[in-house]
Amino acid sequence: MLDELRVRPGLDLARIDPHSTPGWTDGRAAAEQTMHDQLDELSELQEKLFAHGRQGGTRRVLLVLQAMDTAGKGGVVRHVVGAVDPQGVRIASFGAPTPEELEHDFLWRIRAQLPQAGKIGVFDRSHYEDLLVPAVRQGRSEDELADRVTAIRDFEAELAAEGTVVRKVMLHISRDEQKERLRKRLERADKHWKYNPHDLEDRARWDRFQAAYRWMLQATDADEAPWYVVPADRKWFARFAVHTILLEALRGLDLDWPEADFDVEAEKRRLEAS
Amino acid sequence: MLDELRVRPGLDLARIDPHSTPGWTDGRAAAEQTMHDQLDELSELQEKLFAHGRQGGTRRVLLVLQAMDTAGKGGVVRHVVGAVDPQGVRIASFGAPTPEELEHDFLWRIRAQLPQAGKIGVFDRSHYEDLLVPAVRQGRSEDELADRVTAIRDFEAELAAEGTVVRKVMLHISRDEQKERLRKRLERADKHWKYNPHDLEDRARWDRFQAAYRWMLQATDADEAPWYVVPADRKWFARFAVHTILLEALRGLDLDWPEADFDVEAEKRRLEAS
Repeated sequence: MLDELRVRPGLDLARIDPHSTPGWTDGRAAAEQTMHDQLDELSELQEKLFAHGRQGGTRRVLLVLQAMDTAGKGGVVRHVVGAVDPQGVRIASFGAPTPEELEHDFLWRIRAQLPQAGKIGVFDRSHYEDLLVPAVRQGRSEDELADRVTAIRDFEAELAAEGTVVRKVMLHISRDEQKERLRKRLERADKHWKYNPHDLEDRARWDRFQAAYRWMLQATDADEAPWYVVPADRKWFARFAVHTILLEALRGLDLDWPEADFDVEAEKRRLEAS
Repeated sequence: MLDELRVRPGLDLARIDPHSTPGWTDGRAAAEQTMHDQLDELSELQEKLFAHGRQGGTRRVLLVLQAMDTAGKGGVVRHVVGAVDPQGVRIASFGAPTPEELEHDFLWRIRAQLPQAGKIGVFDRSHYEDLLVPAVRQGRSEDELADRVTAIRDFEAELAAEGTVVRKVMLHISRDEQKERLRKRLERADKHWKYNPHDLEDRARWDRFQAAYRWMLQATDADEAPWYVVPADRKWFARFAVHTILLEALRGLDLDWPEADFDVEAEKRRLEAS
């Protein structure tokens, strides 16, 4: 499935159906059963990563989530990331930069939220907002943003070289599905807090966002920090795909339980005497 | 149950059986069923708290966990806190202070890890280590630590006044049960990473730790920041008790879904026209 989701040169978002399920033909029930069956493995891999971090290991995982509003980032975090031990996870959300953040390089606040060694970091929006927002709302050209693209590529290459497994996901929702989800937020009093009138301003710029994503995904895709476009009109598929991306990232670390850094038999004797 | 667990003047830890289940006579299966039945309510209350935070509300919850090694803090975080949306939770672990932390007041690093408004913060160890460690390992007297006690009481009163619901839990394990749990960590290669030879040094000071806890719990119990002693030899009871403490803390906030801060009907029309 990951092959089918990976961004390729010549990417055309308009040709990826947000309602499709690339690389998966077995439907919803089988996807949910597969996720359920893989939960123990996912938990164990996360715990191994954590254990290594506790013994001085430097490996960590960073999952970057980008999407138009209502595409389901929150649900992915809750249902996929929520399946592992919360002590091993660091979630960071990035909104509009604060005045303090604006005084620094755009990656300053990003670096401050990187997960510690042994943890899985999740970015709910990210440094990619620093390409999208100028491109769409401020009309900056690709040339004007070339320095930022370079800075991001260098930053992620540096992360990978340090042992961070970087995986980047764009949840790809359709304009019609967004309308339906916003409608639900307006219809239910317990969902009003999720609605922001400004969401309609970005919605009005839909095509410009899609064009900016198309450019950005290709400009910043790298083998050591790959982008995946995950069709997200079907929530179950989006969750299954991100679950699979996370699971494969952890499998790729190929971690065993760390060796004891003490004499096990001697400690058994000390314990029994205590 | 909370009444039975709350610290009272004259507390004698030696008289609280770590294998007991104060305030609960229905056994394990009923406790687990009750937790299961209350999951939706717990999730909804957490989401209401989060929603208020998003709309400028200042309420938050801080759950402080203290215990001897192996008492089950990790399991509580995983199973109780892990039941709610990870986006609404901030977990902080406090080990030995770093050189930078030692240059500041002992509450400096604690303040830096407080949850944002709308979130549930969980402290895995806390500023209470700054009473326990000097009292036990450095032999400091209660008089010498009186300033720190005052600083902590003032700090927690300030938190409460700002709208933070503070709940403090000591997981109370027996010396025999600790031995059994350490034994398991030594017997299983996948548990070695959880074992630290220094754990036996604190184990050797068991009675001094119990005396320090006894003093500390009484000196820092307050109606706006109460301590609960949770017998923890039975993991299911410890988890059920902390679940109940967290649930009651959230219920006590008495939150409704926040009112929309926009004109719902006007937004519906804008959306349909979009």
